[in-house]
Amino acid sequence: MNKKEKVIEPQNIKLNMEFRAPKGTRDLLPEDKIAKNYVASELQKAFEIFGFNPIETPALEEYETATVKFAAGEGSDVMNEIFTLEDRAGRKLALRYEMTFPLARVIASNPQLPKPFKRYAMGPVWRNGPIKLGRYREFWQCDVDTVGIKNMYADVEILSLIDYIFKKFGINIIIKLNNRKLLNGIMEDLSIPKDLVDKALITIDKLDKIGKEEVIKELKEKGLNEGISKKIINSFETKDLNEVKVKSNLGKEGIKELKEVIDLCSKLNLKNIIFDISLVRGLGYYTGTIFEAFAKDSSIKSSIAGGGRWDKMIQMYGQLKDEVPAVGVAFGLDVIIDVLKEKGVKFDKTVCNLYIIPIKTKEESMKILQRLRLESIKCDMDMNDRSISKNLEYANQLGIKYVLIVGKKELEENKFTLRNMETGIEEKLKIEEIIKKFKVEK
Amino acid sequence: MNKKEKVIEPQNIKLNMEFRAPKGTRDLLPEDKIAKNYVASELQKAFEIFGFNPIETPALEEYETATVKFAAGEGSDVMNEIFTLEDRAGRKLALRYEMTFPLARVIASNPQLPKPFKRYAMGPVWRNGPIKLGRYREFWQCDVDTVGIKNMYADVEILSLIDYIFKKFGINIIIKLNNRKLLNGIMEDLSIPKDLVDKALITIDKLDKIGKEEVIKELKEKGLNEGISKKIINSFETKDLNEVKVKSNLGKEGIKELKEVIDLCSKLNLKNIIFDISLVRGLGYYTGTIFEAFAKDSSIKSSIAGGGRWDKMIQMYGQLKDEVPAVGVAFGLDVIIDVLKEKGVKFDKTVCNLYIIPIKTKEESMKILQRLRLESIKCDMDMNDRSISKNLEYANQLGIKYVLIVGKKELEENKFTLRNMETGIEEKLKIEEIIKKFKVEK
Repeated sequence: MNKKEKVIEPQNIKLNMEFRAPKGTRDLLPEDKIAKNYVASELQKAFEIFGFNPIETPALEEYETATVKFAAGEGSDVMNEIFTLEDRAGRKLALRYEMTFPLARVIASNPQLPKPFKRYAMGPVWRNGPIKLGRYREFWQCDVDTVGIKNMYADVEILSLIDYIFKKFGINIIIKLNNRKLLNGIMEDLSIPKDLVDKALITIDKLDKIGKEEVIKELKEKGLNEGISKKIINSFETKDLNEVKVKSNLGKEGIKELKEVIDLCSKLNLKNIIFDISLVRGLGYYTGTIFEAFAKDSSIKSSIAGGGRWDKMIQMYGQLKDEVPAVGVAFGLDVIIDVLKEKGVKFDKTVCNLYIIPIKTKEESMKILQRLRLESIKCDMDMNDRSISKNLEYANQLGIKYVLIVGKKELEENKFTLRNMETGIEEKLKIEEIIKKFKVEK
Repeated sequence: MNKKEKVIEPQNIKLNMEFRAPKGTRDLLPEDKIAKNYVASELQKAFEIFGFNPIETPALEEYETATVKFAAGEGSDVMNEIFTLEDRAGRKLALRYEMTFPLARVIASNPQLPKPFKRYAMGPVWRNGPIKLGRYREFWQCDVDTVGIKNMYADVEILSLIDYIFKKFGINIIIKLNNRKLLNGIMEDLSIPKDLVDKALITIDKLDKIGKEEVIKELKEKGLNEGISKKIINSFETKDLNEVKVKSNLGKEGIKELKEVIDLCSKLNLKNIIFDISLVRGLGYYTGTIFEAFAKDSSIKSSIAGGGRWDKMIQMYGQLKDEVPAVGVAFGLDVIIDVLKEKGVKFDKTVCNLYIIPIKTKEESMKILQRLRLESIKCDMDMNDRSISKNLEYANQLGIKYVLIVGKKELEENKFTLRNMETGIEEKLKIEEIIKKFKVEK
């Protein structure tokens, strides 16, 4: 392509043309990014304490990799929301829309990796979906998965991680728990045709939200008659696992798995985990345990974390004879921040703790700045020769907690005025005393 | 689009089809990602100590934003390497290919931001370029910029940051320093036509690499005759700033700026900064100070950090009457890791420090695991009922430093065998003693 065609010359820009982040994406300015970094770093710490190792896969995936059956599930909207592009050789690529299928690809193409393989991955994913309130086309996912453990200890470890993290954040949660084997078993008992099972389950998932009548209506639209729809709904009315009756072997296995999970959780004193037979989860690749965590006593109703078992996807990517068991959870970074803000948690507006105001002492102030930084103190100084009042206004706007005034007299005395911007209290301190006051652990 | 068309059915996958990361991209497995996280986190710490605040802009940009003149520079190859895509409404988008123009967009569209505005940004960028050794289509950039300071203190602060960071990493560097005003001034003196200036400079940049003869040849190809080419080269032969003679006012300003930078660096005891008149830097948007840092005594010849002043780009995005001064640097995450590895720095293979081997004590071991994790100890356990020898092999493969053997007898005695996997030394310890040994600071 001709370069000239691709470059917009300055004179061709309309004066009222505005450059902005693309529709459905956001710029995070310092205050928001500081909050995000805080939550991301707390998640990362917890993941590592639980023995999960970091990996990173590209944002770009081959289109065929991204669209294999079981990747996002055939019935999922996600398949219609993939951003596609081409490389210079004409290969069709996709922006990843979640983090699970890239893990399946990595496991399948690296058979040398010792199992169990426990990993976390954090980063942006993209969905070219319709814009709704609070829904973005670029957003972050924080995923944790254990590959290679078939028994329920791995599932419980994930639930334990969820419990651990939200306790750290001081967020009270409830975790809704269910099992896909049980759900499929119930559908088997009712002789629902296989190709309608997933569609019917996605409707059942809405039972709490839209009510019985609407669910029957939607099931009808999907091709199930009223009689069978009512039977389906009846099967989803209980709240007690002990009351659930299922004839199919698959369903029985689901109940057994659920009981194992609940039993072990109780032994580990993990609370607030409740069986919810109408929990389905949208993605088609789940095969066993499924769960979703919600903040209690919060106006934020969307789930704050969710996941489950996905024992069949890796087999798919590896064209393997046997299943490769896997279970994991995705944490919603943005939702967590929203809940913390709702709880009144205040995040820093700036990383900077100390701002030097030089009064005709720029060189000397720069040396003081250099010295404080060598002590790992997060600090900055005015380099624009502004007045004290302008500088105080700036420090205030940024939310910097302390300013240090450095004039000629102060230099001679080696004592400087440190002003607490919140209280207005001033102290006269030596550099060594300032260092002691601000010293952060190294 | 029809869903059926987009989904690859399992039976249609050829048995030898392999799923891999797209050409020019990489999967980072734990060992590599741990190294990357370490370097990224050290950079982040340093950036914050220097008072730079984090921001995040989307990976997606409107195509018009990404291709405005001054974004990457008209003469740059980058303009032909932009990955393009479309959103569902048919808007043309681009994957960001660097982090400077998104900052210019943010500044221009957020006039409320107090100046100076100091930010850092870390994350992937994409270039749909030819694949060469060590060149990727998706790679990370770590950028730091100060917006709103016209004088050379801001430039020196960036040089001081570079010095600080590489001292922390234990990497000896030299920083080559030059100034675009000086370069343009020299070209003015030689009456080089304006449209050839940038092209000629990009060739001059190769003087060290390809030698005089080749440079003259390339200049000729670009439309400059031999006489003028030799004159250009003569102007670039000196190594001493005091010997540089320039008539144009722009050039004189460049020399003045260089002298200010060098003088202040010397006062701050910043060493290993050398004037290099043939340093140009590829991007067209630089307007003043430019610099590149290289690892000394290393086989790695590519620059490890580089940047400069770019006073005109924000004006462009904001359609402003006046320039908005800006200066910054980009750190090469991958190069830093390569240099550290070359120096023999060993990164952890796993985040996990302790691996519990239960011998018919899974439930009790899970409780111990839970207790250790509450103490922030990074640990894990076997959940697959493997033999001790299999588990030792696994811990060894992963590079886990300690294993803890938990049998029935150990539980009764409340004393467990802690084995150092590197030395083979075993101790019998109580849980409290293990916690004390591993306790990490909170």
